[in-house]
Amino acid sequence: MRASRNWATYRCVSSPERRIAKKNGKEESMPIIEMHLMTGRSVEQKRAVAAAITDAVCNALGVKAETVRILVTEHGSEDFSVAGVTAGLRSERQQVPEGI
Amino acid sequence: MRASRNWATYRCVSSPERRIAKKNGKEESMPIIEMHLMTGRSVEQKRAVAAAITDAVCNALGVKAETVRILVTEHGSEDFSVAGVTAGLRSERQQVPEGI
Amino acid sequence: MRASRNWATYRCVSSPERRIAKKNGKEESMPIIEMHLMTGRSVEQKRAVAAAITDAVCNALGVKAETVRILVTEHGSEDFSVAGVTAGLRSERQQVPEGI
Amino acid sequence: MRASRNWATYRCVSSPERRIAKKNGKEESMPIIEMHLMTGRSVEQKRAVAAAITDAVCNALGVKAETVRILVTEHGSEDFSVAGVTAGLRSERQQVPEGI
Amino acid sequence: MRASRNWATYRCVSSPERRIAKKNGKEESMPIIEMHLMTGRSVEQKRAVAAAITDAVCNALGVKAETVRILVTEHGSEDFSVAGVTAGLRSERQQVPEGI
Amino acid sequence: MRASRNWATYRCVSSPERRIAKKNGKEESMPIIEMHLMTGRSVEQKRAVAAAITDAVCNALGVKAETVRILVTEHGSEDFSVAGVTAGLRSERQQVPEGI
Repeated sequence: MRASRNWATYRCVSSPERRIAKKNGKEESMPIIEMHLMTGRSVEQKRAVAAAITDAVCNALGVKAETVRILVTEHGSEDFSVAGVTAGLRSERQQVPEGI
Repeated sequence: MRASRNWATYRCVSSPERRIAKKNGKEESMPIIEMHLMTGRSVEQKRAVAAAITDAVCNALGVKAETVRILVTEHGSEDFSVAGVTAGLRSERQQVPEGI
Repeated sequence: MRASRNWATYRCVSSPERRIAKKNGKEESMPIIEMHLMTGRSVEQKRAVAAAITDAVCNALGVKAETVRILVTEHGSEDFSVAGVTAGLRSERQQVPEGI
Repeated sequence: MRASRNWATYRCVSSPERRIAKKNGKEESMPIIEMHLMTGRSVEQKRAVAAAITDAVCNALGVKAETVRILVTEHGSEDFSVAGVTAGLRSERQQVPEGI
Repeated sequence: MRASRNWATYRCVSSPERRIAKKNGKEESMPIIEMHLMTGRSVEQKRAVAAAITDAVCNALGVKAETVRILVTEHGSEDFSVAGVTAGLRSERQQVPEGI
Repeated sequence: MRASRNWATYRCVSSPERRIAKKNGKEESMPIIEMHLMTGRSVEQKRAVAAAITDAVCNALGVKAETVRILVTEHGSEDFSVAGVTAGLRSERQQVPEGI
């Protein structure tokens, strides 16, 4: 079942690295993460990515999962641009037949 | 009346600390504040918190209220997670009867 | 035609400054830009500002347009305040006749 | 004594508004605040403003102080501009005698 | 060897979910991630967490690793507070003997 | 002279588009821009890019230069990654002779 897999995912085993971090007083390490996405992700995807990032962070940095907070901000297709062209404009151009 | 109370709230009296700041050329101190909230706050609450934060900042740092700008971004229940669990998922779990 | 003007706008000519940047290994300069706007800009305006900022950045810093990413976040009138007064509240006050 | 005043400052009394928020399940309201300041604030000022903002937020929104997190980012004088002029450049200009 | 492990880590296998994303035109999904950390992480930790988060994101969302950008901002102990108390102040208090 | 050129640069001529914006009450449009750069830009570059972006924004959106604020945050080579590889690690790899 999906939900219970998530449940397991976000727990970080108490690694040696974490015990060291604790002794050094870095336990209060507060990873706060802002993630910018294009609009349109499903609830399922959002839950999966929150669990996976948290797992990644607490394993790599040796912090407790409870200290990890993630904020997602979604951006519409006219609110994100690469090289000065919004995603919406790029998409329009790609739908134009080659010859034009 | 509510509005006039707000009106008063955001004015910071010209504290000695501010006059010192001014002499030191720190008047251009530009507090720009981004506040992330869960969706669902009322207009009344948003106006109250903007006034209260501004008041807090200009008193504590000795800056003019006019230099304080606040940007609020609201996040839906699937766009905020603690410990790898989104607020939406957490809420679902809490509504499930204990025995399950 | 508007679109083709944008098309041209975001290309940065390969300036001497850029060739220097390249030699110094700063080509990976990654300007990532977050722009906060009041809600209500048209698609046309968003495309124009994305092109114009990208052009400005790549000319001034000597980087390739492809490295410039822009994220726009829009804020409603109760989600932006100056001096402790939200834009919405300020707007209400300005519509009230002077004598009140 | 300063520290003990701070100690008191950040506690929010349990207001009626908060009890309502709790019933509505908004207790998980997570105000996360990013504050941008010019460099140069003292430790004392930073502690005072953190306490004051937290107090302001939990009173205005009816949330527990423990849910309020504040991140400060400091910007040097060439890293902040108004009207296209950095604070450093503005400062240089203001030191030039009028006649020039 | 550490480096080669990282090398492997950030490659996402081309999952079925990704092929679907591609067909739907969501490949341009641009996850841009800002991570706030307390100062003091080692180079090794920063490289590990960048690889791990990227892996997590591209697996969970079905995007290409090349689209994932991560920006880290570090905050000093007086630039992060929970419940109105900066990490620095909290640390000072914890070093005071219990009886005081 | 450089400084006076900047001085001119950030003034936006009062375009028709701006007069329209004013009538619609959108003058309070508050573009607040956060720009993330790799460390190492010169003061000259920072002043040039602040002027150029501001000019771009006020021309494209029809707002007054005085409403445009820009915050720059610089990131070290281990604090920025693309595809899970920090700029520092990527740089190390590129210096390794091909055969290894």
